[in-house]
Amino acid sequence: MPFSFEIESTAGSARTGVFLTPHGPVETPAFMPVGTLATVKALDPDDLTAMGASMILANAYHLHLRPGDDVVREMGGLHRFMRWDGPILTDSGGFQVFSLAQLRTLSEDGVEFQSHIDGSKRFFTPELVMQIQRNLGSDVIMQFDHVIPGQSDEASARDASERSIRWLARCLAELNRLQNAPPALRLMRAEPDKTAVHLDYAPTRTGEFAAQPQHQALFPIVQGGIHGSLRREAAAAISSMHEWPGYAIGGLSVGEEKPAMYEMLDVVDDALPRTHPRYLMGVGFPEDLIEGVRRGVDLFDCVAPTRMGRNGAVFTHEGRLNIKRAEFRTDPRPLDIHCDCAACSRFTRAYIRHLFVADEILGLRLLSLHNVHFLLSLMRSAREAIRTETLEEWSREWLLRFRATSAIEV
Amino acid sequence: MPFSFEIESTAGSARTGVFLTPHGPVETPAFMPVGTLATVKALDPDDLTAMGASMILANAYHLHLRPGDDVVREMGGLHRFMRWDGPILTDSGGFQVFSLAQLRTLSEDGVEFQSHIDGSKRFFTPELVMQIQRNLGSDVIMQFDHVIPGQSDEASARDASERSIRWLARCLAELNRLQNAPPALRLMRAEPDKTAVHLDYAPTRTGEFAAQPQHQALFPIVQGGIHGSLRREAAAAISSMHEWPGYAIGGLSVGEEKPAMYEMLDVVDDALPRTHPRYLMGVGFPEDLIEGVRRGVDLFDCVAPTRMGRNGAVFTHEGRLNIKRAEFRTDPRPLDIHCDCAACSRFTRAYIRHLFVADEILGLRLLSLHNVHFLLSLMRSAREAIRTETLEEWSREWLLRFRATSAIEV
Repeated sequence: MPFSFEIESTAGSARTGVFLTPHGPVETPAFMPVGTLATVKALDPDDLTAMGASMILANAYHLHLRPGDDVVREMGGLHRFMRWDGPILTDSGGFQVFSLAQLRTLSEDGVEFQSHIDGSKRFFTPELVMQIQRNLGSDVIMQFDHVIPGQSDEASARDASERSIRWLARCLAELNRLQNAPPALRLMRAEPDKTAVHLDYAPTRTGEFAAQPQHQALFPIVQGGIHGSLRREAAAAISSMHEWPGYAIGGLSVGEEKPAMYEMLDVVDDALPRTHPRYLMGVGFPEDLIEGVRRGVDLFDCVAPTRMGRNGAVFTHEGRLNIKRAEFRTDPRPLDIHCDCAACSRFTRAYIRHLFVADEILGLRLLSLHNVHFLLSLMRSAREAIRTETLEEWSREWLLRFRATSAIEV
Repeated sequence: MPFSFEIESTAGSARTGVFLTPHGPVETPAFMPVGTLATVKALDPDDLTAMGASMILANAYHLHLRPGDDVVREMGGLHRFMRWDGPILTDSGGFQVFSLAQLRTLSEDGVEFQSHIDGSKRFFTPELVMQIQRNLGSDVIMQFDHVIPGQSDEASARDASERSIRWLARCLAELNRLQNAPPALRLMRAEPDKTAVHLDYAPTRTGEFAAQPQHQALFPIVQGGIHGSLRREAAAAISSMHEWPGYAIGGLSVGEEKPAMYEMLDVVDDALPRTHPRYLMGVGFPEDLIEGVRRGVDLFDCVAPTRMGRNGAVFTHEGRLNIKRAEFRTDPRPLDIHCDCAACSRFTRAYIRHLFVADEILGLRLLSLHNVHFLLSLMRSAREAIRTETLEEWSREWLLRFRATSAIEV
């Protein structure tokens, strides 16, 4: 099996482990930087390597629209296209179809919608979403799910959760068909395969990348809104359907209150098998990462560090600050005096503030770099705390310090 | 003397040499990337080092307005502020005052104008411009000059050129005063010097930077429009005033025809002392660099590689192309198959086109990086051609190939 998960140490529900993929291992708990359109915004893949990122995200909905998953496949798959030879997880587009796209028409078969870019009509089914992610060639692929707002009532949440489970069965059947089909059929959605010819001319001076994986790990998504019973039912139905290589927890951090989210994490922690990695989708504020780790979550992703970075917001060990504020005009300190990232080891707050005030692109890169580094580093500390059985004290102190000033600073 | 120029080899008017500054040597002929606001747009200083850039530019007008030259001085000077420990040249702002700023009022004393950012009133004199560049702490500083449009008639050109020469004398007197003043007076325009205290906390983990230079090299600017006699008169008046560490040629590539520019370069080549470096201001298209080198120019700068790069234009050995064109949608080749820059050694045209179509910041960085690398590399080839006495053949062949397709591609 090209995928496996080995737990190394535990502390309550929290655990450290290694999630092995065809593109290498992921030490968990891990934060996965988000590269929606096959690039982690404002960063270079070399920046991510230097920061110790192991697994990154991309998005099936966005890449289907631009440049087209057929283009990515023709260019040798996502790893080669974006020059990232570590593991990649692609989100299915469920969240985007139900939040970004216009004029949705939902049926049992799938969702018809208009592209948020050009208004063109599209129809996503569980089968198509598997084909798209097959073309992308990511290591971990997500089921197509029905995502609802965070505060939906139980009836809507049940409807969406049960549909997501029916769609999961269709995703699995389609993935099996694609993986077992002979090569000509496996690449069914694209033009004649010119890859071999083209790649003779492709840049390879920094070393060859692995070919597209034969096997991809399909993760189901536990839905159920903020209704514990629904979450338990979903977890049970999903785990009894198949032994999955990992389990995702969706529909959180989408407008509900924080205590409700933490409660759902407790429910799902008990309801899901402990033998496989759990991925909490779209969650990535520092405090939520720590609360998630304490509740047995192994994988996280969020656009927050790069999106907030582009707006001038900086994560620091003393809370958040906004670099555009006048008080930093001549501040000679690094963004965070406890940080050793490529921004903090070289530049002052005064300089980075100047870059932001003057709309300079380097500013966007430096804050994105710092914020992503901050979360990667936070997960390194969390792993260390679990291994040394100090998770409770470490997380209590960390959260206390971070929250004390965040309320004032942002 | 902290500045010197040694000529190594010549080929007609062209020569290779080493221009030594307090922040290290510059092998000439050299292209200087432009970091107007203390950052070469879309690039990291480490990118510049990796590409072999030796000297870079910044701009006194822009930095005076944002963040303020007093801020830069308080942060330890431009080198420390932007983390560039190689040589820096600052342009005086003459060009900007006469082209960007609103509502100018010119007098013999100086120019009153409104900031292009907030409309605030400013008054630039030759003395103030020296003080600003003293605060910035650049290695080479430019005189404040009166810049006119490229096709100005002889009377206007004479008026501006003669004023520039009178202002040059005032610049020299003020620089001498500043350099000979005791420290308290030398830093006259800023707040109490808190630098020493502040810098205790500044990031220094990648090594200390040199202190602000005690001595700065003031370059005069030869003006005169497209009038050969005026250029000769200016060159003579300037060279007889003082032995300058280098000479700049201004007011070219500002709207005049190319043959007129090349003719002026021939005139100035004969009229200026050959013992010191010549800097052709604001000129940086590949073909103009080669024509300039053939006419004895040692230093060039231009925003073209980064500005054009941000618009998707790519310099290649077969001419220019625009990466946004549909034909590159699945093109597996690097931007330029003859290039080994950090973009070309890793990414396909298809990927970089995708980044541009999707408005991704990495695209801006990769094209800026490639275009700057292209010009640095072009100057390395030019130096090699001069040393091996093959400049004429090399430049003829290079220009033929570059021009053959440029006309079609752009």
